Order: sequence, then C-alpha cells, then structure tokens
Amino acid sequence: MPEFDLAIRGGTVVTASDTVRADVGVRGGRIVAVAEGIADAARVIDASGLLVLPGGIDSHVHIAQDSGPGIVMADDFASATRAAAAGGNTCVMPFALQPRGASLRGAVDAYRARAEGQCHVDVAIHMIISDPTEAVLGQELPALVADGYTSFKVFMTYDDLVLNDRQLLDVFHVARRQGARVMVHAEGYDAIRYLSERLERAGETRPYGHALSRPEIVEREAAHRAISHAELIDLPIVIVHVSGREATEQIAWAQGRGLKIRAETCPQYLTLTAEDMKGLGQDDPMAGSKYVCSPPTRDVESQEAVWSGIRRGIFDVVSSDHCPFRYDDPQGKLNPRGKTSFRWIPNGIPGIETRLPVFFSEGVSKGRISLNQFAALSATNHAKLYGLYPRKGSIAPGFDADLTLWDPNRRETIRQANLHHGSDYTPWEGFEVTGWPVMTIAGGQVIAEDGRVLSEPGRGRVLDRAVDPAERREA
Amino acid sequence: MPEFDLAIRGGTVVTASDTVRADVGVRGGRIVAVAEGIADAARVIDASGLLVLPGGIDSHVHIAQDSGPGIVMADDFASATRAAAAGGNTCVMPFALQPRGASLRGAVDAYRARAEGQCHVDVAIHMIISDPTEAVLGQELPALVADGYTSFKVFMTYDDLVLNDRQLLDVFHVARRQGARVMVHAEGYDAIRYLSERLERAGETRPYGHALSRPEIVEREAAHRAISHAELIDLPIVIVHVSGREATEQIAWAQGRGLKIRAETCPQYLTLTAEDMKGLGQDDPMAGSKYVCSPPTRDVESQEAVWSGIRRGIFDVVSSDHCPFRYDDPQGKLNPRGKTSFRWIPNGIPGIETRLPVFFSEGVSKGRISLNQFAALSATNHAKLYGLYPRKGSIAPGFDADLTLWDPNRRETIRQANLHHGSDYTPWEGFEVTGWPVMTIAGGQVIAEDGRVLSEPGRGRVLDRAVDPAERREA
Amino acid sequence: MPEFDLAIRGGTVVTASDTVRADVGVRGGRIVAVAEGIADAARVIDASGLLVLPGGIDSHVHIAQDSGPGIVMADDFASATRAAAAGGNTCVMPFALQPRGASLRGAVDAYRARAEGQCHVDVAIHMIISDPTEAVLGQELPALVADGYTSFKVFMTYDDLVLNDRQLLDVFHVARRQGARVMVHAEGYDAIRYLSERLERAGETRPYGHALSRPEIVEREAAHRAISHAELIDLPIVIVHVSGREATEQIAWAQGRGLKIRAETCPQYLTLTAEDMKGLGQDDPMAGSKYVCSPPTRDVESQEAVWSGIRRGIFDVVSSDHCPFRYDDPQGKLNPRGKTSFRWIPNGIPGIETRLPVFFSEGVSKGRISLNQFAALSATNHAKLYGLYPRKGSIAPGFDADLTLWDPNRRETIRQANLHHGSDYTPWEGFEVTGWPVMTIAGGQVIAEDGRVLSEPGRGRVLDRAVDPAERREA
Amino acid sequence: MPEFDLAIRGGTVVTASDTVRADVGVRGGRIVAVAEGIADAARVIDASGLLVLPGGIDSHVHIAQDSGPGIVMADDFASATRAAAAGGNTCVMPFALQPRGASLRGAVDAYRARAEGQCHVDVAIHMIISDPTEAVLGQELPALVADGYTSFKVFMTYDDLVLNDRQLLDVFHVARRQGARVMVHAEGYDAIRYLSERLERAGETRPYGHALSRPEIVEREAAHRAISHAELIDLPIVIVHVSGREATEQIAWAQGRGLKIRAETCPQYLTLTAEDMKGLGQDDPMAGSKYVCSPPTRDVESQEAVWSGIRRGIFDVVSSDHCPFRYDDPQGKLNPRGKTSFRWIPNGIPGIETRLPVFFSEGVSKGRISLNQFAALSATNHAKLYGLYPRKGSIAPGFDADLTLWDPNRRETIRQANLHHGSDYTPWEGFEVTGWPVMTIAGGQVIAEDGRVLSEPGRGRVLDRAVDPAERREA
Repeated sequence: MPEFDLAIRGGTVVTASDTVRADVGVRGGRIVAVAEGIADAARVIDASGLLVLPGGIDSHVHIAQDSGPGIVMADDFASATRAAAAGGNTCVMPFALQPRGASLRGAVDAYRARAEGQCHVDVAIHMIISDPTEAVLGQELPALVADGYTSFKVFMTYDDLVLNDRQLLDVFHVARRQGARVMVHAEGYDAIRYLSERLERAGETRPYGHALSRPEIVEREAAHRAISHAELIDLPIVIVHVSGREATEQIAWAQGRGLKIRAETCPQYLTLTAEDMKGLGQDDPMAGSKYVCSPPTRDVESQEAVWSGIRRGIFDVVSSDHCPFRYDDPQGKLNPRGKTSFRWIPNGIPGIETRLPVFFSEGVSKGRISLNQFAALSATNHAKLYGLYPRKGSIAPGFDADLTLWDPNRRETIRQANLHHGSDYTPWEGFEVTGWPVMTIAGGQVIAEDGRVLSEPGRGRVLDRAVDPAERREA
Repeated sequence: MPEFDLAIRGGTVVTASDTVRADVGVRGGRIVAVAEGIADAARVIDASGLLVLPGGIDSHVHIAQDSGPGIVMADDFASATRAAAAGGNTCVMPFALQPRGASLRGAVDAYRARAEGQCHVDVAIHMIISDPTEAVLGQELPALVADGYTSFKVFMTYDDLVLNDRQLLDVFHVARRQGARVMVHAEGYDAIRYLSERLERAGETRPYGHALSRPEIVEREAAHRAISHAELIDLPIVIVHVSGREATEQIAWAQGRGLKIRAETCPQYLTLTAEDMKGLGQDDPMAGSKYVCSPPTRDVESQEAVWSGIRRGIFDVVSSDHCPFRYDDPQGKLNPRGKTSFRWIPNGIPGIETRLPVFFSEGVSKGRISLNQFAALSATNHAKLYGLYPRKGSIAPGFDADLTLWDPNRRETIRQANLHHGSDYTPWEGFEVTGWPVMTIAGGQVIAEDGRVLSEPGRGRVLDRAVDPAERREA
Repeated sequence: MPEFDLAIRGGTVVTASDTVRADVGVRGGRIVAVAEGIADAARVIDASGLLVLPGGIDSHVHIAQDSGPGIVMADDFASATRAAAAGGNTCVMPFALQPRGASLRGAVDAYRARAEGQCHVDVAIHMIISDPTEAVLGQELPALVADGYTSFKVFMTYDDLVLNDRQLLDVFHVARRQGARVMVHAEGYDAIRYLSERLERAGETRPYGHALSRPEIVEREAAHRAISHAELIDLPIVIVHVSGREATEQIAWAQGRGLKIRAETCPQYLTLTAEDMKGLGQDDPMAGSKYVCSPPTRDVESQEAVWSGIRRGIFDVVSSDHCPFRYDDPQGKLNPRGKTSFRWIPNGIPGIETRLPVFFSEGVSKGRISLNQFAALSATNHAKLYGLYPRKGSIAPGFDADLTLWDPNRRETIRQANLHHGSDYTPWEGFEVTGWPVMTIAGGQVIAEDGRVLSEPGRGRVLDRAVDPAERREA
Repeated sequence: MPEFDLAIRGGTVVTASDTVRADVGVRGGRIVAVAEGIADAARVIDASGLLVLPGGIDSHVHIAQDSGPGIVMADDFASATRAAAAGGNTCVMPFALQPRGASLRGAVDAYRARAEGQCHVDVAIHMIISDPTEAVLGQELPALVADGYTSFKVFMTYDDLVLNDRQLLDVFHVARRQGARVMVHAEGYDAIRYLSERLERAGETRPYGHALSRPEIVEREAAHRAISHAELIDLPIVIVHVSGREATEQIAWAQGRGLKIRAETCPQYLTLTAEDMKGLGQDDPMAGSKYVCSPPTRDVESQEAVWSGIRRGIFDVVSSDHCPFRYDDPQGKLNPRGKTSFRWIPNGIPGIETRLPVFFSEGVSKGRISLNQFAALSATNHAKLYGLYPRKGSIAPGFDADLTLWDPNRRETIRQANLHHGSDYTPWEGFEVTGWPVMTIAGGQVIAEDGRVLSEPGRGRVLDRAVDPAERREA
C-alpha cells in the first residue's frame, strides 16, 4: 500500500459496530486504511491509550440566527465552529431561517454567505420554513433540495415560526415528494400561550415560569399530532430535542406500530432539571434564566425515561440544540423585557462544546451505553439521518478523515473559563466528567488539541447533500 | 301505602344494577314504589313476560338545527320526539347552535322557543359554542349554565364550527369554573381539509370519498389533543360519537392514567361499516350518501374494538347522534352540490328511533352485554352524565315515571315504512333485531304502544338542569 | 299493598346503580317494597340521615380452617360471624379445605357441620382443592357443584396447597364443564421458596423478610400464568387478593384483550404497606408479624395503582381475606418456629369486622369512589360473582332483607378493644375512619346495632347455590 | 504496510455499522487491513460487484445430538459444518446435551470429542443442562464456564429436558455468579401436555396437531415466566427461537421496562406458517411432519410482528435452530410412533444452509432491513452475545478472516438437490430468493465457492470462550 499523509497509531478504533485495536491511515484528507502496523506516514500521531472515534457531528445547532428585535445570538460561525472543534466535533448543522414574508432561497443564500470562509469545521445547512407559501412549496423548496439543502425544520410553536396543522401537512407532503428530511419542534403553541398568560396574570413571571408554561403534556400532544400527520402522509419525520417521558412514550408507541418516526434528544434532558430554572442558592433572581430552553428540562424521572429510550434505540441522535445567548447582556438573557417575564427570556442554551464530554461521561463512563452506541448517537446516525453518509460519520476507507481522540479516563470539570463559544456562561459550570476529547482531526488535519484550536476560519466547508432517491415518493 | 295512578304489574324490572320481578307504582307522574303485589291503581298495565326498563335517554340528537345554505334538517321537534317515543325513549337532548357572530343566549332562547309546545318527550338542551368571544365566555355562558343549560359541545372540525386549540382551552377553562359538561367532536379540521382536497384533485368525489377523507388517524389525533387539553385544565370532558379502535385506544390510555375522560359511541359504529358508503349493489351511484356521517363508520375490527370498550366500561353512553336529512331531496343528501362531491353531502344519519332496538339486539340479545349494562348505557349514565339524575335514568321511588316495556324475544325487521322520523330512509333498512320496545311510558302516561304514538306534541317539557357544585372549581 | 313486618323509613337507599330517598318494606325476611311513605309495619326503624346499603358480603374469609401443626385460627364460626355482623356484613363466604390425600366431599361435609347452628349471618361455603385426584375431579367435584358448592379456590403456592400447572389446567377444565367459579391465589411457589431460602441463608429472618420473599414480580408472574391457563381453556377465573401494581397491570392487560378475568382486592392493599412488617417504633421485634399476610402489602404507589384499578372497573370485589391468628399466642403469630423465621409466621390478618368501615372511609369519604361503587364492590358484585344473586346483594323486591344502615358522617377510631373477632389485635389499631355501620339487619332482623351483636348463633344459615347453566360448557 | 496472504479487492464491505467500498487484507488467517488499493497479496480475490460480509455465525444449531430412542439426527459435525460453509457461515454453535442422571462434564467432553477433527468451520459449544444437581451447579458448571463453555440452554418443556421453576431459578443464580449466558426455550410443558392429551383423545393426531398443541399462549406464558425469573435474579437471558407476536410482545414489554432480555428468532418464523403442517396439496398424509418444529410456526400476522420486532431492535440475532431429521426414514420424521401421533414426530427442521439466503432475501432484498442490520443479526450480534467478539463477527483488523461474499442480485431457487446437509428435504424447497452467498472464506481460506465446499473436515476448530468479568456478579 502507498504511503499516508497521516497515521494514527496504537489507538482503539471505535465505530457504531466495532471496537478494535488498529491504526488509521489518511491520505488526501480521507481515511484510506484501517489496519495493523501502518508505519509510513508523513505524520504519525500516537494514540496509545486513546480511543479513536468518528468526529462528533452535531446535527442541531443554532448559529448567528436572527432572534427577534434586540436579541443577538452569542455565536457567529467562527466562534461556534471553533467551540465545536474544541469539543471534539468535526461537523455541525445549523439552520437557515426563512423569516415570514421572505423568500426561502434568499434566506438560505444569505445564511450560506455568512458561513463561507468562517468555519473551522464542516457545516451542512438545514432550513427553517416559517412561511410555506405556494411559491416556497412549489418552487423554492424543491429547487433548494435539489441544490443540496435536503433537510429542514418546522415549528409547532413560537409566534414567528409556528405552522398550523394545514401548513404542516402541506410541508410534509412536499417533503415526501422531494425526499427531504423534516425535523419537528413539537410543542403546542396555543397551550403554551394559554398557560403563559395564566401564569403572568397570576404574577408568576420568574424564569421558572418558563417550565410551568410548557409542561410535558404540551410536548406530548404536539408529538402525537406530528406523528399523526406523518402517519397520514407516510413520512419519516424526526422529532427533535425530546425532553421527557411523555413525548418519549408517544414516539415509542409510534415506532411499536411500525411508523418511521425518528427522534433526537440532548444532554440537557439527560443531566439538568427544571429546578435549575429556580436559580436556587444564587443571589441573582434571574440566574435561572441561564437554563431557559425549549422544551424546558424536566425531572430525574424523565431523564431516566430518556436514557431508557436511548438504550432501547428509540432515539437515533443526541445533539446539543446549541442556541447560545449571553447571560449578562442587554441583548441576551438579561434583556429589558426578559427581566419582566419569562416569556421574553431568549430560549436556548449553549452546548456545542460540552455535548460530547457530558454525553460520554454520563453515558459511557457511567455504564449506561456502550462505546459503539456513543459513536452511533454522537456521529454515525447524524450522518445517516441527514445525508452526510458515507462521507462522514464513521471510520473506514472513503470517509473524510474526521476523527476525535478520546482519553476515556481523563477527569475534567467543565468551566466557562475554558470554553470557546460566544456565550458568557455554561449551564454545566462545575460539572464533572470522566472522558475527554483530547484531539480533533478534521479532513486529516489536527484542528484542536487539548483545548487549543489550531485551525483557521475557512478551513471548514459548507457541504451540499443529496437525497436518497428511494425517499422521493409520490404523495 | 296509598293508591297509585298507574301500576305496571308482573314485569321484570331492570336497572343499571338489578334485574328483579317487581311491580312499579306511579303517582303524579313519578315512581313511588317498586314492590311486590301492587294492586290498587287507577290503571294497571300487565307487563308479564316483559322487561321494564328506564325510558331511553338519547343525549346526542340534532333536531331542527340550521345546517347551512340550502340544506334542511329532516326533523322538527314534533317529528323527532314522536320518533323518539316510538323508539322507546322518554328524553332527548338536542343542541342549540350558536352561529358565528351571534349571541349564544339568543341562539338558546330561539331554539328553546322552537321546542316549547312541540315535544312528545322531555327535552334538555345542550349548547354548541362556535364563537367563544369574551362576551360569550365571560357573561353569556356562565349565565346560561346558571339558567340550567349545563352542557355544551365544541367541534374540532367543520368550517363554521371549528374552534382552534386556544379557543378550546379557553372554553374548557370556563367550563371548569362553571362546572359545565363539555362534549367534544374530535376530528382534526386541517387534516380533513388536506385529505379532502387531495381526494377531489384525484377525482375521488363519490360518497365513499367521505370515508377516505376522515381516516381513523384524524379522529385519534383530535381525541389525543382534546384529552391533552382536558388534562392540562383537569376537566372531565366527554368525547362523543367515538367511531373506532384508534380513538378508543386513546381514551382507554387516558383513563388508565387516571384522567377523567368520558366517552360516547353510537349504534352506527357498532353495526355499519365504511363499505356502506360505496352503495354496493345499488343502481343509484349516490346511494352511499345515505350513510355519510361524521366521524364515518369504519370496519368490523373497529366495531369489535368499540364493543370491547363498551364491555370494559371505557364508554359511558350509547347515543344515536341522530342528524336526519332526507335522501331524495334537493335540500338533503341529493342537494346539487352534494352530487358533485362528498364534501357537500350533509353529514348525518337518522337514528333516534332505531338506536334502542339495534343496540339491544346486538348487545343484549347477542350476549355481548348484560341487561343492566344496557340500562346504564341507554339511560342511566346519560342522566348522570348530564345532570338529569336522580330525576331521570332509573326505576326507583322519586324518579319520573319514564319507562319502556321491552319484549326481549320479539323479532322485528327495521323498515323505513314503520318509522316516525322525518327522514325518508333509514340506514338500518332490513336490519333484523331481537328485542323490541312495545310500550313507552313518560311521566306515567303511555305515549307509544306497538309503533303507535299516543301523546300530543307539547306533552314533553324542556328541562332545566343544575350543575354539581363539586364540579365548579377554580381554574 | 299489604302490611309489612318491618319498615326502614326516611333513609337514603343506595344500590350499585342508584341513590334515592325511599323507605324499605320487609315481609317474611325479604324485601317486598322500596317505596315512598311506607307506614304500616310491625316495626319501624327510623333511618333519617342514614344510608341504607345492601348488607355487606365478604366473599373471602377464612374461619376455623386447619392451619398446620401447632397453629390455630383465632375464629370459629360463632366469633367470626359475630364480628362480621358487627362490621356491617350479612353474609360471608369461608372455605372448606381439602387436605392432601383426603376426600373433598368429606372435607366439605365436616366443614359444613362445623358451621351449622353457629352462625350469626348467612354463610356460603367455597371449597379449596389441594389434591385434584381423578376421583375428586371426576366424581366429587361435579357432585358437590350440583349440591350447591359452586365455587372453589386453588393455590399456586404454599407447601400443602400448591397445585402445579397441569393440576391447575385439569381443575380449570372441570370447572368449565361444571360452570363452577374458580378463585386463584396467584403467587409463584418456586420463586418464593428460592427467595426464602436465600433470605434465611443471609440471616434475614425477621417478619419483614416475608415481604422480601414475595416481591410483586412473584405475584405478577403467577397472575400471568393463571391468566394464560384461563385463556387456553376460556374460563372466567377470579384472581383474588391482588396486592399491587404489577398484578393489576396484568389483569388490566388481560381484560383489555377481551379475556374474562375477574379480580378481587382487600383493604390491606389499599391502606397498609410492607413497612408495617418492620414493626417500626415498637420495642417488640416481632411486632411486624401482625401484618404478615400473603400476598404481602406493598407501597403507596401500589396502593394508588389498585385504587385506580378499582375506579376503572378492573376489580369486581373488595373482600377482607380475613385469616385471623392471635398475636401473643404460641399457637398464633408468636409460635415457637415463627420466632425463628418469617417462614413460620402464620400468614393472614384479621379483617372481617373492619373491611367495610376502612373501605368506605378511604373510598367514599375520601372521594375516590361513589356510594354506588361502594355498594357494588362490597356487596352486589360478590353476590353476582358467586351465585348468590338475586337473592342477596341489592335492595329491591325479592332480595333477602339484608341491609346495613350507615352514618356517613360518623367518625370513629378503630380499636381492638371494640372488636368482636377472635384475634387479639387488629392491623388497623388507631386507624381513623369517617362513616360507620350503625345497624346491621339480616333477614329482616336487627342483628347488630352500634357495636352490640343482638343475634344468636344459628340464626344464619348455610346457603346452597346453583351455577348459571350458561357457564356450563364443554371443554 | 507489509504484504498480505490474501486480498479481497473491489468489493463493498458491510459491517453492522458501515457499508463502504474497500479492500480487505488478510495475513495469518486474520484481517489486518481494510483499506483502499491493497495490491500486494499472495492471492487476490476479485469481489467487484459483490458484498463482503462478516461470515455468518449461526449461534443455534443442533448437530449429532442424542434425540431419544430410535431417532437419529441427520447431521454429524462433518455434514452440518459442510452445509454451514456452503450456506455462507464460518462459525456455528451446537449444544452438548447433558442427559438426566449424567455428568455435565462428561457430556461436554464426549461432545467435543465428536466435533474435533470433523468440522469445516469453527465451532463453539453451548451446553444444555437437563439435570441441575448440586454437583452440576456447584462444581461442574463453574469449572466448565472457566474452561470456555460460557453459555448454556435450558428448556421449559420436553419430557427429558424440562426444568421446573425452582431449577430454572437455581440455574439462573449460578449463571449470574459465573457470568454465563443463558438461553431459554420458552414453552410451557404442562400446558403442552394438557393440550396434547386432549387432542389425542379427540383423535387429532395428524402433524398439524403439533401446532394445535402449542398455541402462542403457551410460548407467551413461558416467556413471561422466564422474564420474571430473570428479573428476580437480574440476569440478562436470551429467549431463543421466538415464533410469534405474543412472545414478542412480552419481550418488548420487558425491554421497555429496562430489563436486559435478549431475543432470537429464526427464518422459519419469518417465512413459514402453521398451515404448512397440514401438508396441503400433497398426497402423503404425513408430509406436514417435515415442518414440525418447536415452537411451531404461526401465521402471517405473527410473521409481521416478528419482522417489526427485528426492525425495532427487539431481536438481537436470527439463527437457524437447525435440528435436522430425515423425512423418509424410520429413524426420522416417519418413525413408527411418529406415524401414530404428532407427539412422536421428532421436533426440528434443517436450516443451517438456507438461513442466510432466506433471511437476506426476505430482509434486505425486500427492503425490510438494511445491509447493516443483516450483518448485525446474522453475525456481529451472535459474536457479541456469546463471547466470540472481537475475534469473530465483524470486518476490521484483528478479526478472524471469516468473510462471506454475496451477490446481492443473484436469484436462486432453493432445492434439496443442491444442499449439503444430512437431511433428505428442506422446508424451503422451491423458495425463491434474491441474493446469494457465492464464496465463504474462513480464516483466510476459501472454504466454499458457488455451492462447492472446498475445505477438509478438521479445518474448523472448537473454540473456547471467556466470560466478560463485568457479568460475573454476586447473586
């Protein structure tokens, strides 16, 4: 065999299926060999004692997304992908959001322009459809899918994003014909409005009101509704950021009936609870706002239900739903209106950099899942679900040389001081983990090592994808 | 004991609990004794060999209700209650429909006026709320509940009636405070519209298209949604006219979680199927429209699921959902637009007169349910559910002397020619039954005997009801 | 109407269906009228402010039953039925136990002889089959069923009683042909032995070891097994004394599939927990043995699951499973071997006298069930299930004049000092209840009033029963 | 990289996770590289257009096992492993059966001796424990596990094999301490006996009586029982050869509760039905006996339930349960007693050679499962479940060079004439498949090509295994 640009030697290679002692040979940015005794390489990295995992893929992140008047997201592409690289990721998938009344194509083009030349890791862009006009559904969306934007998200809540049931059905209908992948944010808009207004009338405006305004029933109902629409149209949707036992039960029920419902959850639903929004033990009455995300975090029983779902294969992917705002910032969590009521606290928490260590530690190190399940849930399944496979997501000849070297025994404490994201806090401050990504390799290049990011913005590309022709079906 | 106006002697008295040989003594229109050997009575009816059952209560009938431009319901109060009496009923509960933009109070007053002086049997009026404005929810509805209109229905479908989720929640909220009983028509509007348009585009406009446009998923989703709203507000709603296994499963699931969800089904969902809408074996291509009702009838497997639910106590009441239109009539099923597409065929079938014999025969005579379950499902539970108890619904001292004498062995064939309703057909034409109501007694007066109605319009009163104070709860 | 021997005036008559203000007229020991204004009676009892309920039927009691070497049950027929009467009961159903190797007929005859002339309330005798020989199954059992012993119990545990699966199937087979009612004690013998031996080896011999040796899994497995056998043979068995959520889930699952599985639970499973067997806060290390019964009591979550099952109709009857032993007695709980290990503590607790007030208070007074459900679960369903209906179990002409007058508002504290049973303690010592049976009337005679028993032993008869011919089916 | 003994070039390599174009390099019988462009090899096999899959592992086969008086199994190790090789397998796992009253060690040693020197493919030996004496559980079993026999099967039925519940619990207890893997044949002995005797009394002795004597309830009950025992002891058992929807439902229920229950099914339960036992359309009245296996095959609805379970991950492995008897043979299906009743027809069907093509065709080619799922279910999971991993079961450096080359498009019809097993028929005679194993490579050696077996007996070794220390737990 010819020589290699790079050899990773002596590590334990982990894929969604296997765990083997092997070397990895890279040439031209791609993996060309997984073998014993790879010696001839321009660069050799000693991975002794380390795990060699597929580079993390985070298929659900929000970067530089418009967030309403006066609110600014804390990450641009440079900072978000820098943080991603430091956290062991080699690919992230943010969202190009169509504002109501605007062209979807325009939104996508503008968003892509924002990304080009800025990214440390590869990026593939989902769309968010907030205004499914005839033009969008009939022309723009099919053309964009053909151009490589093969996935999009729809919302069942939020004033500016919510689609009604008819719009959901129409969007699903088009997705089926185009073979596009649909992600659904399942929370019921009307119920949240009803509860929020009741809470405000009752003077319950603290950050914790956010949790009260979106109980699990609200998520469960929307999940059931989305499942029903998907069943009517026979479309395999993804229910994203599932937060608790109620929605998990609906998804398991649907899968048990043979429906092709896929699901995602996030580390926050596995490690945090609604109690965090009470900001207990902190002088600052708004401290709980650091934990405000949607759906909100739940309780320990729901954490266990989601873990159980992960183990049983109910969930396909664990993403971060990174949605970063600064805390101590008038354009962030502490914006003027946000201080008056939970309703105006920007929804979202940073997590792009902490997803992998938190999930590895709580999952693998605590014995809840296997290394192979970790590889699948953190990388392989993301790639398969969203059309990046077989370019990304595993360790085998032909894949991009996107790898993360893990020290499974290293103990660390998560500290904002060490993070690279644009936010000024992390919800996991002080969280102790076992297992740590010590080196991130993307396209055969070491882009992060021991907390230092070595790449330049622009190294990462914006990827186009193609739909599986088998998923294009007459509706 | 003093003398009686009327004695029913020698029969087998059936209540929701008991089956006993006993005489029934009536005075002043009320039952005053259930006893052995009642002899002294102004009139004695020999019930030897007969069952003495509580008079049927049909808590879900549509009478003289506005049905859109060019469409006329086939029954006024006189004909509907005449048919009810002939069919063994002593009380029916129709709906005063609030048109959009109109006052609820006005609608109720006008509807009551239409009923007064016309009825053969007692009537208690539900409301239909189609426009829950602040004035309706804040003033009219509470006042009407206080005036004795303690129950109302809301719709999750139909262009002119559908409430969105926020309206449903607001209406549920008020119902909880007022202790009112809410009935929910659970079918999803948007999904029906989506499917109907697809069907029409595909040229599938025959009556059978009605079934295709409202598959069980559509009912199940709406049932789940209504259950979720009810759970949020902790309100014990009634899901009416449940048609199949999917919605039944949701209700059983909710009850299994301890939610106070009540349910109704109808004889059509126990005996007819969607195939009927194909009008097979009939020359007339529109014949299937005779069976068009909403939700549509399903298949044999769903019939069995509903029977199972009845046996297990998932369902509380079996009503007719009588909603009569004439078939061969330009203001009925064969209206000009109805001929062009199933979408314009008036939804509804007549059933007020056939409900009891069909349900008795298929239920009791075929061994699926006990006599006591029949009494409960056809009368007692209706009265308890809608505030007519303990005035109506059983056979014991203090109850209105509303009784139906049944010959459990009599075999009959249902024929339109023998019916008293205003429609020109019955979906059960030729249906053979075992068990027949041979005499209907209301308020101690024989109002129907062997198919002849003996009462005068106006004998039946419009009843006011009162809410159970325990059901009035802060929301 | 002719005169009455007895009139109960001014009360509120409660049946499984109805709650009405009415008088009850009695003649010749039977109810002959439920009516308004019954005046002419030899004796008139003023029931103003009281509930008139069907006399309690306790279909699961152990009286004077052989309990192994050195152990003596604390009640004979006189004391047990005296306690029953004081506790509001008018009929109890004890068990004639066939010892291994002995004739079933002999056991029944001897047991009946023990009862004759001793009882304060009517008694109907179940059998226990421990040795289903060919002679027993082929001759004795059919003959005994024909003679009026129409129900029997089988055990899936206990050294001297356990039947293996083949024996259960053979017994079920005969029961189906004879139309007999089968009660099943569902706990798995082998698992209990396995766990008991492990516990003893580990030195865990305290009374609480009893709970550890019979976890819910053991009951659930046996329930599933019994259900499966019953399904194979299509026999409607009764699973008795269901203790927790696991077995309840199995029964609900079976009923949901349409299987005719009936179920019983007991007040101990609604109010006590396994913690009681720890004897906490008592100096006496054996105090926990007072609560040793099988299946053992569970936890609060299981109590709620059983209550939920009661509300949903999963359970048909609430019995006491009265099985009385004295505590401070070498032939009772403190027998010499019982002090060495939980395995030798006699299984069973007294409850015949406390069943009704405990269940009424926790059920009706706390709003968990309706008065009508109480009537059904404490009397009517027992009579229907075991062939005493329509002689017993309700209040209507023709029924035995077996009635209990309840003061629904009376508050009492249960005290051993006030009880009439043969045991020297009650597990409900100090338990506070709202609602109290103030008078027990059997066959038209006042047999207990305000804690005093007025009848003589021998007033109660031993009743024969007949099977429903429809339940005799070829197997 | 150094040179290779063998290179497989140009194929599509499939693992449980990935599908990639790559070459496979072999040295010393092991895979040492999966890479692009492997050129230097002593032998090069062109796999263009072919799939390179992990060699099939069949973890459930019966070979040369004593089968009762007068009955002889149709395969010895030579013929069974020859057939395995021809059918794409590189490892099989047969059973050393302990006869009642005999030493387990003795049985294992004798069985191993029978295998040594005879096998074409590697063999790892499970045990069958039929007599769990103290000596077996206390000494023999622990020693055998330590010696590399780390898995064993227990039976809940069959006269000579059935363990009672106590024995099952004791065996599970020891398995937990030793970390051994337990396989459970879940059918209820007593119920089968009861039903068989009833059928024989009724004259129903045809082969189809076999299906009637073992309905799904019998399997479901035993599965539930085994699950309960496993739950008591917290032991991760494998329920083998699951045949239908009832047992599948129990396993899914258990997994949903978090229990570590694993499951196996077989091609017969995915493709055959009980109707086959009727021998329809064949003159020979005993023809149905060719399909007699236990559990029996079911119906199309059960097939779909098992497929659904496969897709959802309920099942881990698909094995053959190869259990070969000759049909037209007095020591086989047509033995003298077998002609008198289904009870004496030897239970079992041949399948070692047809498992992979039937499962591939029905699974992958019909679109029910992915290629990766096929790899997992036919090889990888077998290795992981039974301690052969990471030596066997995947394609990566370090694994034995056990590979099967598949032509995914080749269409074949299964014919007994082409098979290598010792039986004289195949239940899949005439079955058409798409996808065919064209070459089997074991330890880097081509052992079968296009239906010809090229290896010599003795090439295959008998493998020892080691338990995962984490599975050894105090019980």
